Amino acid sequence: MIYLLFALSVSIASAQQTLKMTSAKIRAYRQANEHKIIGELAELLAIPNLASDSVDIRRNAAKLVEMLQQRGVRTQLLEVAGSPPVVFGELKAPGAKRTLMFYAHYDGQPVAAMKWDTDPWQPVLRDQATEAGGKIISMPSPDKAFESEWRIYARSASDDKSPIVAMLTALDAIRANKLKLTTNLKFFFEGEEEAGSPHLEAIVAKYADQLKADAWILCDGPVHQTRKQQLYFGVRGIISFELTVYGANRELHSGHYGNWTPNPAMMLSQLLASMKDEDGRVLIQNFYDGVEQLKPMEREAIAQTPDSDRDLMRSLGLARAEGGGKRLVELVNLPSLNIRGLQSAAAGDNARNVVPAAATAAIDIRLVKGTDRHRMRELVENHIRQQGCHIVHADPDFETRLKYPKIVKTVWEEGYNASRTAMDLPISQSLIAAVEAMKGEPVIKMPTLGGSVPFYIFTDILQTPAIGVPIVNHDNNQHSANENLRLQNLWDGIEVLAALMVM
Amino acid sequence: MIYLLFALSVSIASAQQTLKMTSAKIRAYRQANEHKIIGELAELLAIPNLASDSVDIRRNAAKLVEMLQQRGVRTQLLEVAGSPPVVFGELKAPGAKRTLMFYAHYDGQPVAAMKWDTDPWQPVLRDQATEAGGKIISMPSPDKAFESEWRIYARSASDDKSPIVAMLTALDAIRANKLKLTTNLKFFFEGEEEAGSPHLEAIVAKYADQLKADAWILCDGPVHQTRKQQLYFGVRGIISFELTVYGANRELHSGHYGNWTPNPAMMLSQLLASMKDEDGRVLIQNFYDGVEQLKPMEREAIAQTPDSDRDLMRSLGLARAEGGGKRLVELVNLPSLNIRGLQSAAAGDNARNVVPAAATAAIDIRLVKGTDRHRMRELVENHIRQQGCHIVHADPDFETRLKYPKIVKTVWEEGYNASRTAMDLPISQSLIAAVEAMKGEPVIKMPTLGGSVPFYIFTDILQTPAIGVPIVNHDNNQHSANENLRLQNLWDGIEVLAALMVM
Repeated sequence: MIYLLFALSVSIASAQQTLKMTSAKIRAYRQANEHKIIGELAELLAIPNLASDSVDIRRNAAKLVEMLQQRGVRTQLLEVAGSPPVVFGELKAPGAKRTLMFYAHYDGQPVAAMKWDTDPWQPVLRDQATEAGGKIISMPSPDKAFESEWRIYARSASDDKSPIVAMLTALDAIRANKLKLTTNLKFFFEGEEEAGSPHLEAIVAKYADQLKADAWILCDGPVHQTRKQQLYFGVRGIISFELTVYGANRELHSGHYGNWTPNPAMMLSQLLASMKDEDGRVLIQNFYDGVEQLKPMEREAIAQTPDSDRDLMRSLGLARAEGGGKRLVELVNLPSLNIRGLQSAAAGDNARNVVPAAATAAIDIRLVKGTDRHRMRELVENHIRQQGCHIVHADPDFETRLKYPKIVKTVWEEGYNASRTAMDLPISQSLIAAVEAMKGEPVIKMPTLGGSVPFYIFTDILQTPAIGVPIVNHDNNQHSANENLRLQNLWDGIEVLAALMVM
Repeated sequence: MIYLLFALSVSIASAQQTLKMTSAKIRAYRQANEHKIIGELAELLAIPNLASDSVDIRRNAAKLVEMLQQRGVRTQLLEVAGSPPVVFGELKAPGAKRTLMFYAHYDGQPVAAMKWDTDPWQPVLRDQATEAGGKIISMPSPDKAFESEWRIYARSASDDKSPIVAMLTALDAIRANKLKLTTNLKFFFEGEEEAGSPHLEAIVAKYADQLKADAWILCDGPVHQTRKQQLYFGVRGIISFELTVYGANRELHSGHYGNWTPNPAMMLSQLLASMKDEDGRVLIQNFYDGVEQLKPMEREAIAQTPDSDRDLMRSLGLARAEGGGKRLVELVNLPSLNIRGLQSAAAGDNARNVVPAAATAAIDIRLVKGTDRHRMRELVENHIRQQGCHIVHADPDFETRLKYPKIVKTVWEEGYNASRTAMDLPISQSLIAAVEAMKGEPVIKMPTLGGSVPFYIFTDILQTPAIGVPIVNHDNNQHSANENLRLQNLWDGIEVLAALMVM
């Protein structure tokens, strides 16, 4: 028994030593090939990638197939009727210890191009973040290195195209150094994650046999705000919806009708205000019911996470945070309700003196283990009814308008529930060990990532552990204008992902 | 004394008889010249007229000068630095009893072109209102008449270019019939009414001598919802402002930060909700203080106004109105607070999973006699401060953001106060008598029009009575998409305005 423990610790120590050497080799490869890596990423970023644009999406998919095939990876497009294709790849390693499925998505959030400083699909390099006064710089000449604080600006620079380049570069670096690939590699690049992954479940069901793996490695989301590597073992689920409140059947002159006709923008404000208190606590009845308690190992991991909240508030120009004094890392283990947009008639230069005919709020609810999306929908609709509103799911007809004094249309996206992989599984522990060895320091282990990835499809439907290995910077303006990737994050990401292929 | 009263009543009866005959003559002229009238209106409507576009505005002014000069009216552009020109015209009538100043404005509200069924500056004719299924029709051949329920669709078709054409056509009809012009005519066509008339006061002060008149006749606003002619003796004032609430200094991912970073859209909703109760009563402290009581003659006029509220609600698809059971005609004698637009990040197809960085509401407050715009501004800002907000008037700098947990930017337009002309003045009574004689029935006499016109400049600064003589249909989609003019309103308007020139 003592011998066995000794042998195990020798084996771990030796594995750690090996990974440390590996790390140096991977880094050397990257340093020698930065221009090629950035060039490949820039080409990929230049292809617009809104999930709903099927022509552009297939151009992205074709490019990914080409990138995989150049590396000898067998490719296949996985699709069901109406879906963008999943770009699937498979590379077998002789004598592999395991099979890992590397997940990323190649579609991006819609862009409000007016708000971008440069074209979202014309990647540019800046010497630092725009918020810090970063200036556009040209590509360095082939004999010059890229500086690690430089950033690439483009839609999906961080979310989620650069992880794809990091994975493939990790493979290149392993081969160039003739390191042993200990893992069968599968790649799963989704094309509609930002649209809520409406076909993912069907695709996974259809191709379940090909998708067998020991774990899914989710390369989405950012590293910690302290720029430290983090691994996440769960994600929040999401269910999004829009509320539209109606006034008269057309806009009316605000002078002639301004304190007689009901104002839908005011009705919407009152309805929204009823949903949260001043401190951000959701007032919808039973909203927090059923939240699953964290296990001791998870609570311990949270406790060890560095507290960067004050720094984060400072960098964001915030004099306060919501959540009653709880830390951000704790708060993401609770469900949230967030107004992601408001729209009624017009504000700003195009404001007109009207009583609007309708007012709309776009809202997302983030779910955690124990809070089901169907039940949340019910709770929200109950709350709306409690405010005296009649709920419809399409624009009300004339008779409905005449019948109900307060009409609210709710339009729900499908959404998905939260899920979590246990930290104490052997695959979880191996992965933590490999990444910590590669980094040479402990990493942050998050029971729940604040953002949403359709983890449940892997954990609950495929019954396979899923672990998030994010690589991009937290301050990447993900989902917004001026999305960017800090180069050091790409460099680090290549090493971390390589660790998983040779661990 | 008895003789005098008798002579007076003979004189009034005879004047009424004369006006009735005049009405028939004016009508005959119009019927014979409809194509010319509509042609002139369509040409004027085809010139875009946003007050802030100085090139387009001057094209409109040049066209108006041409239209006046064609009729032998002496013209002059009245302007001060930075203002669009007022197109001023003067036509003296030998032996005139009085001088009337005919006011209209030639600028229009901004357009949200996407929401229009046709180009806002390409006038089209429809066989009825679009809301009733109206179809586009071509101009009738020269030998065919226009039908009175047809409508012209274009920005400013009602607000406020057609009154200009009605005035000039009234003059044409008087001359063609060789009727005696009893009134010196002055014309005052403003070019920035929809932008809040920021230079009107300065222009009026600069040209006060030329602007002397016995009364200003304001041809702006609609006739009553029953389609009956109305005259208005007062208007509400207006003060508009925008509220912007701030969150973090950039949009954040709603998953990673969604129940930690304050959401400005929710803060704005809460702030707006605090301003009105469910029945539309404004909750801002002292908001209704100082409202001047109506005089008995004014209350009597309101009592005689036909009650069309139920019909109006039906036509607008409304199951309720605000105002605690008061009639619309009463409610416009109270100040109002109206959200005219909301904007934060995006709703609809462009919604993204973000916590917005800011949220804006555009608001207008309508003022009545006794509620001063400066004081209203103070009351609103006091209210905002009472909600725990720090007020700024420009985007907050970083230090301000870090200092105050709730920051609200208020940006105020100048606005102007309400004003009113006494109904019992001789000029008021003459005008009522002339219009009633021309129409052959009592007209509606409104102490206060719900909308705003800078009446105070005439009544309070020039110390001249001002009376509103609106001609356009109430259901004209004024300020919104698909603005239109019902032809019968133009036909009637020509007769009403002619009555004032020969009364």
